[in-house]
Amino acid sequence: VKNISRVKLGDIEAAATRVAGTVMRTPLVPTELGTAQRPLFLKAESLQPGGSFKLRGATNAVLQLTPDQRARGVITHSSGNHAQALARAARSAGVHATIVMPRQSPEVKQAATRAQGAEVVLVDIADRESAVAALQAETGAVLVPPYDDAHVIAGQGTVGLEVLADLPEVATVLVPVSGGGLISGIAVAVKSLRPEVRVIAVEPELAGDLAEGFSRRERVVWDAARTGRTIADGLRVVGVGELNWVHIDQYVDDVITVPEEAILGAMRRIALDVRLVSEPSGAVATAGFLEAEATLPPGPVVAILSGGNVDPDLLAKVVRG
Amino acid sequence: VKNISRVKLGDIEAAATRVAGTVMRTPLVPTELGTAQRPLFLKAESLQPGGSFKLRGATNAVLQLTPDQRARGVITHSSGNHAQALARAARSAGVHATIVMPRQSPEVKQAATRAQGAEVVLVDIADRESAVAALQAETGAVLVPPYDDAHVIAGQGTVGLEVLADLPEVATVLVPVSGGGLISGIAVAVKSLRPEVRVIAVEPELAGDLAEGFSRRERVVWDAARTGRTIADGLRVVGVGELNWVHIDQYVDDVITVPEEAILGAMRRIALDVRLVSEPSGAVATAGFLEAEATLPPGPVVAILSGGNVDPDLLAKVVRG
Repeated sequence: VKNISRVKLGDIEAAATRVAGTVMRTPLVPTELGTAQRPLFLKAESLQPGGSFKLRGATNAVLQLTPDQRARGVITHSSGNHAQALARAARSAGVHATIVMPRQSPEVKQAATRAQGAEVVLVDIADRESAVAALQAETGAVLVPPYDDAHVIAGQGTVGLEVLADLPEVATVLVPVSGGGLISGIAVAVKSLRPEVRVIAVEPELAGDLAEGFSRRERVVWDAARTGRTIADGLRVVGVGELNWVHIDQYVDDVITVPEEAILGAMRRIALDVRLVSEPSGAVATAGFLEAEATLPPGPVVAILSGGNVDPDLLAKVVRG
Repeated sequence: VKNISRVKLGDIEAAATRVAGTVMRTPLVPTELGTAQRPLFLKAESLQPGGSFKLRGATNAVLQLTPDQRARGVITHSSGNHAQALARAARSAGVHATIVMPRQSPEVKQAATRAQGAEVVLVDIADRESAVAALQAETGAVLVPPYDDAHVIAGQGTVGLEVLADLPEVATVLVPVSGGGLISGIAVAVKSLRPEVRVIAVEPELAGDLAEGFSRRERVVWDAARTGRTIADGLRVVGVGELNWVHIDQYVDDVITVPEEAILGAMRRIALDVRLVSEPSGAVATAGFLEAEATLPPGPVVAILSGGNVDPDLLAKVVRG
């Protein structure tokens, strides 16, 4: 059931309590990628079970199902990490999960989703939503959307609470954006508690729909052929969700975009200098820091390393340089 | 000044307080490499500033220098990670560091040591100790040995305190061994507080001097040509230190050895399944788990991921598979 109410700080605090037994409190890792004026820390959501922050929102949604909804199971469509996260959250709660995935999804993500006991249904990317609707009509399964949902946003927002708790002196938080679930939640948490901290979205230039929309102060949707050009496969969503846009419009300070080479360069530095494995989408916020550091306010910067499910050949290629 | 007294729990607790401002409290990362009976967690010392646990012991030693010793500076020889750690600990404390390194040390480790402001002196591996002695005679610098020293052992032992605090239900701790500083400290901490927890050393078969010595209940030293065969360049020390042997003999439950292929296989799984970068030495404890899981007592297992300073080409090769 899509929840369209605005997310408040209290929802995020409640989510933090709810997910505490399932979700890892990920470390904030100091790095040497920053400067004396702007030291950089990475919030390593790549170490979350399943390898991405998505477990937070999925768990927060699944744990609020009614007994009747639990019996019918959950369903979603996802380019990968939300799929795996929902499968995992559902299994933890003893609920059946059906995941509709685009055929082009990396094999590593398909396999990881099946390994969590979920039923995987592969479809053409354009048919994702209709396939979900047809399956829902048949089974009564509850849709847990990847980002455009208040429970999901509140769950992702728990990242923001942890950042503030671990680094009270933070000046800027850099967050990768695709559908906008992560940045919506983080922005509500951070701006509610510490309005002076800057929350900045980072996108690939090739999937810069939010950058365009933000400058026009309206939600903009690109087409899938356009966003599909970026190597950051987790960030190919064509536009932020409607509920996400409302939160982004209210709370986010700025949007910056990064070229593809910067994403690959950041992956390499994260692997070799910080010793963390990131997927391309996971390196986008760090790429934003490396490209735009001089434009940020002075003070500590946190970049969200959103996930680490990377194709082995790509990781090898990037590391080899 | 080499400290030859036995390390006690109180020394390790004091070290934990002393190093808290410099050393990272590293995360204990849950993995899916274990089983229901023996879940595996990795203690990610690779995320420590400088990329290894060595910062703990070096910091504990440097922070106990007298004002006169501080003025004369510190010196050591090291195959790499201790070098970088001492350079870093010294810089933090405003003390000059001279590091004698074997010419064969990976370039990445030499460069990282220089980047920390240390003076690096390259010598043939056989001349390391004499070069240190000559420089000490000249400058009066204080030797901070890599492992055979009570302050260093106490510092490394702080890893054990953190493991017990984060996972009170731990049944087994697997620790890589070279000179024995890490396992000596961890064994004192763990066995003093929780004698029923098993502390097991893991070595490459090709550098299995401790396995041989442990079975004979005496300290055994191999020659450098023999230990030099392992890809785990951090574990090529020819024998554990004398002070280390005393602690290992008293506290360690068992020693297991792993073949080279198992080390590389563990590196790959750590990178792709746990999303952490390890150097070969850092993957040895996990390799021990993967090889010998069935022989361990039931209950949660912690493998110490001791470091992540890996040659990029080797990492790429291992990841590509």
